Amino acid sequence: MSHAVNFTPGPSQLYFTVADHVKQAFRDGIPSLSHRSKLFENIFAGCTNDLRTLLNIPATHTIVFTGSATEIWERMLQSLVVNRSHHFVNGSFSKRFHEIAVQLGKQPSTTEVAPGLGFSDNVVPDDAELIALTHNETSTGVSMPMSFIDAFRAQHPRAIIAVDAVSSLPYPQFDYTKVDSVFFSVQKGFGLPAGLGVWIVNDACIERTHELTTRGHSTGSYHSLASLVEHAKKNQTPETPNVLGIYLLGKVVQDMLRRGIQQIRKETEYKAAILYQAMSQHATLKPFVQDAAWQSKTVIVGQCESGLADLVSKLNQKGLQPGDGYGPFKKSQLRFANFPAHSKEQFELLVDTLEAR
Amino acid sequence: MSHAVNFTPGPSQLYFTVADHVKQAFRDGIPSLSHRSKLFENIFAGCTNDLRTLLNIPATHTIVFTGSATEIWERMLQSLVVNRSHHFVNGSFSKRFHEIAVQLGKQPSTTEVAPGLGFSDNVVPDDAELIALTHNETSTGVSMPMSFIDAFRAQHPRAIIAVDAVSSLPYPQFDYTKVDSVFFSVQKGFGLPAGLGVWIVNDACIERTHELTTRGHSTGSYHSLASLVEHAKKNQTPETPNVLGIYLLGKVVQDMLRRGIQQIRKETEYKAAILYQAMSQHATLKPFVQDAAWQSKTVIVGQCESGLADLVSKLNQKGLQPGDGYGPFKKSQLRFANFPAHSKEQFELLVDTLEAR
Repeated sequence: MSHAVNFTPGPSQLYFTVADHVKQAFRDGIPSLSHRSKLFENIFAGCTNDLRTLLNIPATHTIVFTGSATEIWERMLQSLVVNRSHHFVNGSFSKRFHEIAVQLGKQPSTTEVAPGLGFSDNVVPDDAELIALTHNETSTGVSMPMSFIDAFRAQHPRAIIAVDAVSSLPYPQFDYTKVDSVFFSVQKGFGLPAGLGVWIVNDACIERTHELTTRGHSTGSYHSLASLVEHAKKNQTPETPNVLGIYLLGKVVQDMLRRGIQQIRKETEYKAAILYQAMSQHATLKPFVQDAAWQSKTVIVGQCESGLADLVSKLNQKGLQPGDGYGPFKKSQLRFANFPAHSKEQFELLVDTLEAR
Repeated sequence: MSHAVNFTPGPSQLYFTVADHVKQAFRDGIPSLSHRSKLFENIFAGCTNDLRTLLNIPATHTIVFTGSATEIWERMLQSLVVNRSHHFVNGSFSKRFHEIAVQLGKQPSTTEVAPGLGFSDNVVPDDAELIALTHNETSTGVSMPMSFIDAFRAQHPRAIIAVDAVSSLPYPQFDYTKVDSVFFSVQKGFGLPAGLGVWIVNDACIERTHELTTRGHSTGSYHSLASLVEHAKKNQTPETPNVLGIYLLGKVVQDMLRRGIQQIRKETEYKAAILYQAMSQHATLKPFVQDAAWQSKTVIVGQCESGLADLVSKLNQKGLQPGDGYGPFKKSQLRFANFPAHSKEQFELLVDTLEAR
């Protein structure tokens, strides 16, 4: 199992160095380290500082940790929204973000298009307190162009603009003057074991949650945004966190800094280009997302018109494990994660195998 | 660092076998396993079934997972309480459970005694929807006798009786006909890396949360008790969980089953007995909890009348790392976790070192 290449878009292939970092962690006593120790604070500070460098996050933004990105959906709505969040929905994960708003008793609205499509308009109700954008819809492989994301700021200066980048980071460079919050989980692009969400928030988010509290609105308890930020300022967490997860994220971010973010981006684009090219010429496996401007670089989805089982079998014979299509597309699509843990050589083998008769 | 014995009561000493299980997990691809796979469902089922056997949990109770025990405090109050929870408070952690109820906008009440004391009465307001009992107060080493816990059921047949057993399990055998919910986190008695909470609930809890939902009360979203239980019935989780954490818990529970819970209990009692005995005769380090009926077997706290720094230095020279006193007791107390990961030999060395002039 460990020798096959896992293209499932999360939990995905581990980053090359994770197993070695885990060994070192055990040698150094990290798994039983107290989260109230100075050493933990150093690990927290190192991880968040290096992540800031890697993703080019300005000093206006704070980084906090949760158990998952799913938890961030909930905490964000609890901490930043009284009534109205507006959600751009084009697949299962953007839809789930909207559902959580409904479950929490908010009055969310949506702009919804069919799976596989981008959005043709960016109209948001004037009373939207938060605009929920899914940069990369993991279920369908649609990715928002940066120009689409960046256009909201000028139109909606007061709304919190929140970007779910779960299956795209570390690839995209966001313009953090145009977005208030970005979040992801570590088991996708960072190639780590699941169990940690990373939430980036700017001062506008922090001010908004204090404003809500002042108005008597309950924003949660130990994992309210205010509590997370207050602890993060001291390089701490409100509860005993996934210490090993934070340590490993820090180590992998250091590895990525040594490799260089530009190099990671260049390789991501190369791998995406050869796979889309191969699919465009393939007899049965075609890109599901038609509009090139909205095609994801990090989760590449193929629609299989016939013979999906044969194709999977051919890939498996080479040790290549594509991800199933998501939900209703399980039997008609394949998904290929293109994360930093997936090497150029693995993508070349994938493309060669697809092209072989 | 890895050669010292860590007596801090959580995150504490790792269980003997954890490092080997982690190696096997990496060989078997567990850290990148999809949580929607059949293999994950098998891991979930194996872990919960074996835990049921180890702790002797009847079929009336369901086991679900969260990110931490702190999260369980919050989810429990969100899912089971509209207004009134009643909290028995005798230290920092029982107090924090109460504070979370306040933060969530409930109207909780308390029975409060000074740190280090047990409770002399068990009066609970008639309108209490949930009775919050901290079996083992990690901050002070006070543990409720089973007879105290078991007495609530007859008096309060409708209230949910919830027991925080964070720093006592797997040692105690609860009478599950007398308690509706028990919960813990894995970094204490189970000797695992932090990042997983385990929540045991009976059918009364499940009925109560459905009743609240029916009455139009919001009980949360992806980690509402209803959502957690619904997924657990299929051996699944609502979100991508700490898969490695669940796998490791299952492995350590298997190891504990092989060792035998009676053996673990006998050793726990032996180790507690020799440490309390040594402290009762020690010149400067005395048991903080005076009443033997309320002395914890699993977190043993010593009050140091003078020379604490010298004592710590003497212990450290033997590779023994006591836990600091908690909060205000940081400079006057030491805490010793007595978990299954702490061997008889380590406790004998601890006692010998304390007794040496």
